[in-house]
Amino acid sequence: MQNTDHEFRSRCSIARSLELLGDRWTLLIVRDLMWHGKHTFQELQTSEERMPTNQLSQRLKRLIHWGLVTREAYQDRPVRYRYELTGKGRALEPLLLQIMRWGHENLDGGLYDPVQKTTVSAGRC
Amino acid sequence: MQNTDHEFRSRCSIARSLELLGDRWTLLIVRDLMWHGKHTFQELQTSEERMPTNQLSQRLKRLIHWGLVTREAYQDRPVRYRYELTGKGRALEPLLLQIMRWGHENLDGGLYDPVQKTTVSAGRC
Repeated sequence: MQNTDHEFRSRCSIARSLELLGDRWTLLIVRDLMWHGKHTFQELQTSEERMPTNQLSQRLKRLIHWGLVTREAYQDRPVRYRYELTGKGRALEPLLLQIMRWGHENLDGGLYDPVQKTTVSAGRC
Repeated sequence: MQNTDHEFRSRCSIARSLELLGDRWTLLIVRDLMWHGKHTFQELQTSEERMPTNQLSQRLKRLIHWGLVTREAYQDRPVRYRYELTGKGRALEPLLLQIMRWGHENLDGGLYDPVQKTTVSAGRC
């Protein structure tokens, strides 16, 4: 299911993007899927930010609905899913890097280098 | 007042940035201050997205608190303010451009060119 049935409030690409990404959690899920090898619900729950279970569940559904994430059952009884970014989801990497850079320079956070897989200052992302 | 008294939930620069920017409105205010010459409360209220007054008021206060925006009275009785981005606020331009690009490529929105001051496809930002 893609986003073609969604009524956007604006023709601006920034406003549109924020309808999907504009909250405290969604881009952290994308971060964990993209760089931290977290692919199950349990793994995604273990982030430093301690995302509430219901928020994680709702955000994952939305990411799937919008075609940024796919899920595949890897176990029956109980059924468990593995989550992966699609191309549209992976295309958020430059945006994540820009947010990280701004936060690093202005809010004193850590700067994780996804290429080297290392943290280049105190803290980490 | 700067953000030194704020207790961040995470050392990750992305999570920190989202504590300030992670909602549907804040980056649209930054967009309007940065590119659209909107500098008064009245002007900022006229965006296509029709931001509710109380949200605009609260977000502006937060942006001032965090040192991304300054305000200066330009009129008494009633007092009216002019809002401007600080250097820290203007440093969000590459991030805005990345969000716009992603939205344009993936959500079919408009792509505004802030250098040419033109819209290069249907819609606008």
